[in-house]
Amino acid sequence: MAAHTHYLWFETKRRQEIIDITDEVTQQVRASGVKEGFVLVSAMHISASVFVNDHESGLWHDILKWLEETVAPWEPERYQHNETGEDNAAAHLRSLTIGHEVIVPITAGKLDLGPWQRVFYGEWDGQRRKRVIIKVLGEV
Amino acid sequence: MAAHTHYLWFETKRRQEIIDITDEVTQQVRASGVKEGFVLVSAMHISASVFVNDHESGLWHDILKWLEETVAPWEPERYQHNETGEDNAAAHLRSLTIGHEVIVPITAGKLDLGPWQRVFYGEWDGQRRKRVIIKVLGEV
Amino acid sequence: MAAHTHYLWFETKRRQEIIDITDEVTQQVRASGVKEGFVLVSAMHISASVFVNDHESGLWHDILKWLEETVAPWEPERYQHNETGEDNAAAHLRSLTIGHEVIVPITAGKLDLGPWQRVFYGEWDGQRRKRVIIKVLGEV
Repeated sequence: MAAHTHYLWFETKRRQEIIDITDEVTQQVRASGVKEGFVLVSAMHISASVFVNDHESGLWHDILKWLEETVAPWEPERYQHNETGEDNAAAHLRSLTIGHEVIVPITAGKLDLGPWQRVFYGEWDGQRRKRVIIKVLGEV
Repeated sequence: MAAHTHYLWFETKRRQEIIDITDEVTQQVRASGVKEGFVLVSAMHISASVFVNDHESGLWHDILKWLEETVAPWEPERYQHNETGEDNAAAHLRSLTIGHEVIVPITAGKLDLGPWQRVFYGEWDGQRRKRVIIKVLGEV
Repeated sequence: MAAHTHYLWFETKRRQEIIDITDEVTQQVRASGVKEGFVLVSAMHISASVFVNDHESGLWHDILKWLEETVAPWEPERYQHNETGEDNAAAHLRSLTIGHEVIVPITAGKLDLGPWQRVFYGEWDGQRRKRVIIKVLGEV
């Protein structure tokens, strides 16, 4: 059995941004030597998400629009959390909706994803340094 | 330590459908011989979900209605993703909301679920062949 | 490799309540002796959540308000599930939105969480005895 840990750092230019991190996850699975197991990919912040979906820019646009219009509008004055001096309560609710982590199965040394599945970092309150943990666990 | 992998195939009659797959997961845990560990049950598609909830048909009706009326209406013209020729952007947003995977604990060789918990496949864009991976990892 | 299992019991005074359980999870990771691995924290009920977010009471207020006003209003007459005699269909939809489980990485014997991340139990239909499973898996 082996465990392997790696941290990815982000500092996005825009406040909200969706970034494909599948290649980085693939690279860490290879580095781990694990043949059968799981890789956890998890945002280390409470205003960000990690999710699996489609590498298609129209969809990324739809996701950001849907987060703003349906899930949780940014409007800082709506939220009690923002009385602490923050303005990012909406980012927390977006993180809760999409989730902050995924587990991807590893089979025969490779990410066992479906044909269209890719792993994404969803930044909901960026323009500052933030982190994702990649942790591989399994049989070498 | 042991790992065991199995794929379930689906081709639903309706475009949206909720299917109880607890018995299939139970069977694969038994086949794995794992006594203490985790089983990952994960949709291999970006327009489907795997979730844990209640085996009650009224609730399944409520979930489908809520996905359409509250979470993400199907209306293809609302979404930029559908300019690619697809009409299923709403299915992606539904998958992001409910999630595409669960991890169920295995204790003493059995799924360690609460009294009402069952594992479901949620098809949000069906009528074609799609897949779920069941991956067991743990001590035999 | 080691596995360690512990159950937490809750009986909340209010019907909806958010409870920080990070200390209990930390304690079970220590008890397990696991140095590198994963801890699964999972509600054993279909009307509750486990999630990672911020220890800030204003945000907890925002989450409960958002669940009622945006995600799924309680209004029992809206839902077919409640024709079974229940009134808690909304609690099921809230559990599906936020999720019922998290996996936290363990590195060098400790929960590998970001600076503001804490683990919470979200009770969406309380005032009765309910349970969370904490299951640790990894290398000792």
